[in-house]
Amino acid sequence: MVSGSMYKLGTAVSPIRAYYELGWSRAEELGRENIFDFSLGAPAVPMPDAYRRELIRLLEEEDQVKLHTYAPHPGVPETKKAITDDLNSRFGCSFDPGDIIMTAGAAPAISAVLSAIKTSPSDEIALLAPYFSEYSAIIEGLGLKKLEIKTLEPDFHLDLDAIERALGPDTAALLLNSPNNPSGAVYPAEDLKRLAEILKNKSEEFGRTIFLISDEPYRELMLEDEEFPFPANFYDDTVICYSYSKSLSIAGERMGYVLIPGANGERKKLFPAVMGAARANGVSNAPVLFQKALIKCAGLSSDTELYRKNRDVLYDALTSMGYVCTKPKATFYMMVKTLEDDRAFCERAASMGLIFAPCSGFGFPGYVRVALCVPEDTAKRSVGAFRRLMDSYRQEP
Amino acid sequence: MVSGSMYKLGTAVSPIRAYYELGWSRAEELGRENIFDFSLGAPAVPMPDAYRRELIRLLEEEDQVKLHTYAPHPGVPETKKAITDDLNSRFGCSFDPGDIIMTAGAAPAISAVLSAIKTSPSDEIALLAPYFSEYSAIIEGLGLKKLEIKTLEPDFHLDLDAIERALGPDTAALLLNSPNNPSGAVYPAEDLKRLAEILKNKSEEFGRTIFLISDEPYRELMLEDEEFPFPANFYDDTVICYSYSKSLSIAGERMGYVLIPGANGERKKLFPAVMGAARANGVSNAPVLFQKALIKCAGLSSDTELYRKNRDVLYDALTSMGYVCTKPKATFYMMVKTLEDDRAFCERAASMGLIFAPCSGFGFPGYVRVALCVPEDTAKRSVGAFRRLMDSYRQEP
Repeated sequence: MVSGSMYKLGTAVSPIRAYYELGWSRAEELGRENIFDFSLGAPAVPMPDAYRRELIRLLEEEDQVKLHTYAPHPGVPETKKAITDDLNSRFGCSFDPGDIIMTAGAAPAISAVLSAIKTSPSDEIALLAPYFSEYSAIIEGLGLKKLEIKTLEPDFHLDLDAIERALGPDTAALLLNSPNNPSGAVYPAEDLKRLAEILKNKSEEFGRTIFLISDEPYRELMLEDEEFPFPANFYDDTVICYSYSKSLSIAGERMGYVLIPGANGERKKLFPAVMGAARANGVSNAPVLFQKALIKCAGLSSDTELYRKNRDVLYDALTSMGYVCTKPKATFYMMVKTLEDDRAFCERAASMGLIFAPCSGFGFPGYVRVALCVPEDTAKRSVGAFRRLMDSYRQEP
Repeated sequence: MVSGSMYKLGTAVSPIRAYYELGWSRAEELGRENIFDFSLGAPAVPMPDAYRRELIRLLEEEDQVKLHTYAPHPGVPETKKAITDDLNSRFGCSFDPGDIIMTAGAAPAISAVLSAIKTSPSDEIALLAPYFSEYSAIIEGLGLKKLEIKTLEPDFHLDLDAIERALGPDTAALLLNSPNNPSGAVYPAEDLKRLAEILKNKSEEFGRTIFLISDEPYRELMLEDEEFPFPANFYDDTVICYSYSKSLSIAGERMGYVLIPGANGERKKLFPAVMGAARANGVSNAPVLFQKALIKCAGLSSDTELYRKNRDVLYDALTSMGYVCTKPKATFYMMVKTLEDDRAFCERAASMGLIFAPCSGFGFPGYVRVALCVPEDTAKRSVGAFRRLMDSYRQEP
């Protein structure tokens, strides 16, 4: 009398948490300060102080009945205007505030969009591996199929030929995540341009719009002084899913949005369908206090300097020890090649107090994801543990 | 290439909002102060001040990285302990904090529970009319069937014989809402006792657990000095869905929970299945700031005095004019019998500046729902408009 598929989904071990307990079980023996937990993608820097002060001001000065009441289902209009003003000025788009549906983070945004475009149980969603492990849970939970397409080592950029070959008549959408969790790759403009051509051609060939779902919660976490190639600028039939979890360091507060640009050819049907799907999921809106504080703070982001420092410290240290790593251009993740099966590698590392996630959980075995969102001191002090891990492999015959 | 069922759900007009625009379109002619909007169930009193001060304190004093980070998926442990301590002391239960999954309001709670217990497309959910209109959207959106069973006029208490006759082998759950939106009824203990016997017998007869899903966001809005008969105390296989929208006046902030008591015979499977369903919906958790502020404030509720006053003013005035109303014992809603088809009645009322929701949208035609959560002055000044509405019917031949 309980759904088998939901039970399975609820008992499946997240690859992100798989070695967490094993690692921390060593705390007594090694000392808590010698457990280096790189497993969780939780921000390590505070929200911008202006945002914090605005939250307090609203709680101190505004009419509390009006402040905390229901927002319109698609979100607070002034918040959405602040968001589109910011996006339009930074990326040269012409989004309208009415293009946005506020959601409780990116996950319900993606879930609602996928529900809204599902027209048959044979529909498949193309995923570019490595991809965020939670995508699988949502896709499978909704009864959709995954179409996995690998990106190219060593920089995990798009394998455009493979994408062109893989897309088929059942492909409802391609779910893109740039900057990418877990690789930290930022897909270059020329690749997005060619991807758009492929999607357009395949849409025509199969007589259905293949949507580009652009999940971009790491957009504001660029670690190089480069511009972010904004996927919606390359392909009309794009749907943007966003979360403020990382950019404002409010992962626990649950605020994000779906943005369906006016240029999207199916917008008129798709917008209400996403609203309908959110309704069926019971997902209405992001917390209104956090929405309203955004009105004056839409252009702000948390400081990324710590993530850049940690990346540089660990990239330099690990490569000098002989690890193969790809230097991430954005996000707070770095992929490191493993010296045996990635789960066995994680298990050995955890037993030495080093905790990270095996990339087999992200559709790309043979690597681990090291989350760089840790205190600077943790990153620096972990170097010895990484050396002991490497040594443990070298001592083997 | 867009889901027809989700499009339909997203374009359906909510009965609550159906006459909103028509009513407000009269503002220029009648004056804004003569539009009496009783349509929306949004709290009209502020959150308890101690809760507001605790939100500010957290934002001023706590480590902002730790404060806003991801909570564990089922919620903040200390918050859940505060909730179960409060429930256990008030209702004499023995809930464990581990029985709770925090959610972004009651709607995602109900959606996740229904997904978790859906084992076949023929599964039906029993609803006791009148019922909250959004239940239909969630049930139909999830591909489940509705089994509507009417309650008894004039007090809208359970029709136990009808329930006994209606439950069948496809009934997966009965969704109970006491105190009830829109009727304001509180189901008496003796009725809940007999309901439990019926559910138990029918579960045995059909060889499947019929769950009692108790949606109780109005539990703290008792308007009489009576104890609330707590449904979980009557039937083991209960699942509680709750929202703080009304009790803490934070409808826009999205905080609620699912509670699966240890006594529930399917708890071991159901708890992970609800977690899995929440995962598929992308629904993880309530905003963590509001959760953490609850640790010290779990026993607090907003003041219900305004709702009681408005009820008394309108009940007395309307009945003295000849309207047939049922005096609600709880919630901030009152049902009023209509003098013609309830939609036509709402249309006529809206054209005179009186806005409320037709109960045909709540499965009980022939009534309207008057939301009593308005300023005291609005309730008092609306009396003349109610009189004009009544007069307009009396003047007809």
